[in-house]
Amino acid sequence: MSWSSQEVRLAQRPLGYPDSETWEIADVEVGEPGPGEFVVNLELISLDPAMRGWLNDVRSYAPPVGIGEVMRAYGAGTIVASQHDHYAVGDVVSGTFGVREYAVSDGHDVTKLDLDVAPMATWLGALGMPGMTAYFGLEEVGRVQPGQTVLVSAAAGAVGSIVAQLAKAKGCRVIGVAGGPEKVAWLQEVGLDEVIDRKEGDLIRQVRRAAPDGVDFYFDNVGGEMLDAALANLAFGARIALCGAISAYNEEKLPEGPRRYMALLVFRATMQGFLVTDYKDRYDEAVAEISQLIAQDRIVATETILDGGVTTFPDALLGLFSGVNTGKLLLKV
Amino acid sequence: MSWSSQEVRLAQRPLGYPDSETWEIADVEVGEPGPGEFVVNLELISLDPAMRGWLNDVRSYAPPVGIGEVMRAYGAGTIVASQHDHYAVGDVVSGTFGVREYAVSDGHDVTKLDLDVAPMATWLGALGMPGMTAYFGLEEVGRVQPGQTVLVSAAAGAVGSIVAQLAKAKGCRVIGVAGGPEKVAWLQEVGLDEVIDRKEGDLIRQVRRAAPDGVDFYFDNVGGEMLDAALANLAFGARIALCGAISAYNEEKLPEGPRRYMALLVFRATMQGFLVTDYKDRYDEAVAEISQLIAQDRIVATETILDGGVTTFPDALLGLFSGVNTGKLLLKV
Repeated sequence: MSWSSQEVRLAQRPLGYPDSETWEIADVEVGEPGPGEFVVNLELISLDPAMRGWLNDVRSYAPPVGIGEVMRAYGAGTIVASQHDHYAVGDVVSGTFGVREYAVSDGHDVTKLDLDVAPMATWLGALGMPGMTAYFGLEEVGRVQPGQTVLVSAAAGAVGSIVAQLAKAKGCRVIGVAGGPEKVAWLQEVGLDEVIDRKEGDLIRQVRRAAPDGVDFYFDNVGGEMLDAALANLAFGARIALCGAISAYNEEKLPEGPRRYMALLVFRATMQGFLVTDYKDRYDEAVAEISQLIAQDRIVATETILDGGVTTFPDALLGLFSGVNTGKLLLKV
Repeated sequence: MSWSSQEVRLAQRPLGYPDSETWEIADVEVGEPGPGEFVVNLELISLDPAMRGWLNDVRSYAPPVGIGEVMRAYGAGTIVASQHDHYAVGDVVSGTFGVREYAVSDGHDVTKLDLDVAPMATWLGALGMPGMTAYFGLEEVGRVQPGQTVLVSAAAGAVGSIVAQLAKAKGCRVIGVAGGPEKVAWLQEVGLDEVIDRKEGDLIRQVRRAAPDGVDFYFDNVGGEMLDAALANLAFGARIALCGAISAYNEEKLPEGPRRYMALLVFRATMQGFLVTDYKDRYDEAVAEISQLIAQDRIVATETILDGGVTTFPDALLGLFSGVNTGKLLLKV
């Protein structure tokens, strides 16, 4: 038996935003799995800011996607054929399967998903990489205490929404930053103490108003002007977790750095980069805590699921950078 | 009795480099000290990069010097009159006495200097604030281990020269950055493993050549391009201590921030600001260690002493920013 599968390949490295030249769609036949392999029928593909970095031919924490290769993507689906001892037909799994309809895998870095705990989409969001990122950024870099003031950028996004709610659950005063009235309303409903609409501008003053005594922990997903606004409003001994810089990912040149970085000296503060995969051994701990908080209605896990199939991946990715999503952005295959 | 004393006052806040409009010289009569006070005849005045910050009317870790006030300065001299229980005529002391010939003090934050341990100039350099800054930056932010690679900017300066030599004493591989062949030669003589002349440009490549496996700890005195060159060459888990940004202190506008700050994420690195005065309670520990290393000839404590009296302070300060000094820069009163 074989499965015909559409896939999205990297045709050309983009300068700035990816466009139609960046991608090519191909049709392939996926045959029966070899020994130690299985075939998964993908149902959901994850759209992640990090994807933009994988398109650049530069040294980073993950190697670039090669020209002509299937675009790297995290996703989830159901196994339709297996010659693997640990994975059986019908198992629901997640892994880095790429932007395609059917993938062959040897099981490396593949996770079985228990749909009794949460639906597949949540396993790619609050209980997947974004949730893990939120959890370890808060635990290991933030080390926040009850009563501290936490500022989260892209707070309606996949990672930010979990950071903000985990910090609330820890008894922090949480300020979220998001773009536009709908996301702001969603964050207010979720229970944040203050919500800033970045589209209203003057971020320094908006943060000052929301955090008159300064920010103890800033979880940075965006970089740029927002990072400077946080630096301008630090509390003594503040900590900044660098998780991403989505504002910069599509710039053709390396944008300016944070002008106000010397605030780190004035406030004896720390800015630290982290990467979720360093905490791989402890994902179970994070999944247990987040799923419990979801069950207790103390965390709202939400996803925005686009319904166009793999060939719409190029537009879906642009949607991520324009901020179409509340919560995790997924593409239905 | 009274003493006639020249002093340098802040006449006007400078934009950019201080100039003749910035300062005014005044002659005052210093009378007998009141109860709980003493009069010190200043012999050496310390020139510090932080002075430039004190001229700006902005929120920082020290309040600005007021218009018309005597310029704040650290210095040392001999007590010539006293009504203070703990300070006697003939005692040699250091403190924040200002840019003047005679100062009245109530003893607050004043230190008695033991000239059997080290000469007065060393008490303002390797055993003074610069040495303390070096020690605690390395101990508390760097936490370096033997064999690690340490990069120090302004390595021939008051703080950098002590950081570099302390790191050598701890068994690190030490790379110093300085401006011009004389300073480079001095640092080579002092025993650094590699010395970079920043005036030769291409700092990123120069650091890469000197630290092919990356920098474990970067002690930043200068900011600007040098900080970016360090960020471009971090080792995994690297640490950066922000001590100063002398390259920026005379800029009229806030200069660009470190463009490559996202290297902190790629290398899971930390950038941390610190201020020496936070470790006031532990200065004795640092003085003991540094003076022992000086006695063992493992640290060379050096000073550049300008010999023009207090009225030449304005030029002496500019000399600090153009880098006339090797080691601590002092002005002889």
